[in-house]
Amino acid sequence: MEPNNTVFSHHISSQFNEDIQDVNTKFMAMGGLVEQQVANAIHALLDTDLDLAIKVQFEDNAVNRFEQEIDEALTLILARRHPAASDLRMVIAMSKANTDLERIGDEAAKIARIAQNLCEEGESPRGYMETRHIGNQVRIMIREALDAFARLDAEAAVQVMRADGDIDREYSSAMRALMTYMIEDPRHISRVINVMWVLRSLERIGDHARNISEQVIYMVKGMDVRHTDVDKVEKQVQAKTTAIEQKKTPE
Amino acid sequence: MEPNNTVFSHHISSQFNEDIQDVNTKFMAMGGLVEQQVANAIHALLDTDLDLAIKVQFEDNAVNRFEQEIDEALTLILARRHPAASDLRMVIAMSKANTDLERIGDEAAKIARIAQNLCEEGESPRGYMETRHIGNQVRIMIREALDAFARLDAEAAVQVMRADGDIDREYSSAMRALMTYMIEDPRHISRVINVMWVLRSLERIGDHARNISEQVIYMVKGMDVRHTDVDKVEKQVQAKTTAIEQKKTPE
Repeated sequence: MEPNNTVFSHHISSQFNEDIQDVNTKFMAMGGLVEQQVANAIHALLDTDLDLAIKVQFEDNAVNRFEQEIDEALTLILARRHPAASDLRMVIAMSKANTDLERIGDEAAKIARIAQNLCEEGESPRGYMETRHIGNQVRIMIREALDAFARLDAEAAVQVMRADGDIDREYSSAMRALMTYMIEDPRHISRVINVMWVLRSLERIGDHARNISEQVIYMVKGMDVRHTDVDKVEKQVQAKTTAIEQKKTPE
Repeated sequence: MEPNNTVFSHHISSQFNEDIQDVNTKFMAMGGLVEQQVANAIHALLDTDLDLAIKVQFEDNAVNRFEQEIDEALTLILARRHPAASDLRMVIAMSKANTDLERIGDEAAKIARIAQNLCEEGESPRGYMETRHIGNQVRIMIREALDAFARLDAEAAVQVMRADGDIDREYSSAMRALMTYMIEDPRHISRVINVMWVLRSLERIGDHARNISEQVIYMVKGMDVRHTDVDKVEKQVQAKTTAIEQKKTPE
């Protein structure tokens, strides 16, 4: 069962490194797919592209398979390699982030479903400018969260957490504008509500990207920063980095 | 660091049993709290109880603390006890279900937030009957998912998965009714949309209860039934149970 690798086999954790590297490759591929799914869902909506809307919903199966394969691989690593300390945190962080990636895929599929409905009904309602804008922002958040994960960069992860706050504010403002528009012109109620669901999905995607970033900080710094204000998190991350650097100095 | 217990110390997995029992007690307490949070959020909404609406939002902190403590305890178990097979599955299932319980708590807090807004604005809009009905159903789902978890009952977990399908159908039907109502009488748009958000939260809570049930099946039967149709899951669970019983017969 074990690969016969003479270079690594002398060191117990090198087998772990090999295994986790394989899962990490899969995790990053899943991340790329999920980011593409979000981009495609928004394109399908804004360009009323029915084929693309259907494709995104179909491709959600591939995201789901990734989720299952990654969890299976992580369980095998836990059972065989008994990782400890930062190795264990990496497995746990990837397991949590895996769930978030799958949920982002779900939200992309929901957006694609709405895009399909709107395509079938006809032309575009108000609220698309906000969708494009917030959509672009959450795509950037997903990419930066995954980059921070790949580079084990806690400082970059803090920036993603901060971006989520911006998105929440823009989401609230867009929702108020849509509500006003709907009250002023109730003929478009049904379409505007569809745009509201899209914005809600985008806002949720932002939350999931934030969750992934929190896992990066847990993995790198060993701190559970869920449910913590971003300013406080930033200070804690800086303090931890400084403490580690000071420890290194005497050597 | 290890408790000095002569009765259990001869057996490597008994220490695991003790540790997991402690986390399980905490997990069940968290489940009880979360179920109460959902009940209180709905009460606050239906009885326009401002104090209760504020209390639910405040208590979400207690849910969040539970989540962090449970994850920390599970990480310690992985690091110290190196569980395998069904023990490992129990740790993983509890870790995943922990996330779902916390998300249910988030949705309860969102409902309470809307209840607070509606309290401050005045009397009640259409759509409360649906809220009461679907609210009761998801509360039952949470309780039955937790019972199935506590009793390691895969068959009961399948029934919770089935109930989620019912909720999804009732949710869609309620949303169509609210949409029609809003188009017919646009004066209530803002309030009706608030009820729509509540229903959406309840529908999400149903999804999370379903997720917890899927983890029960994983834990008990070792099958990953996420993204699988409930009829297929039911057959797989029955087949697995029969296979295990036939294996036992020759002894």
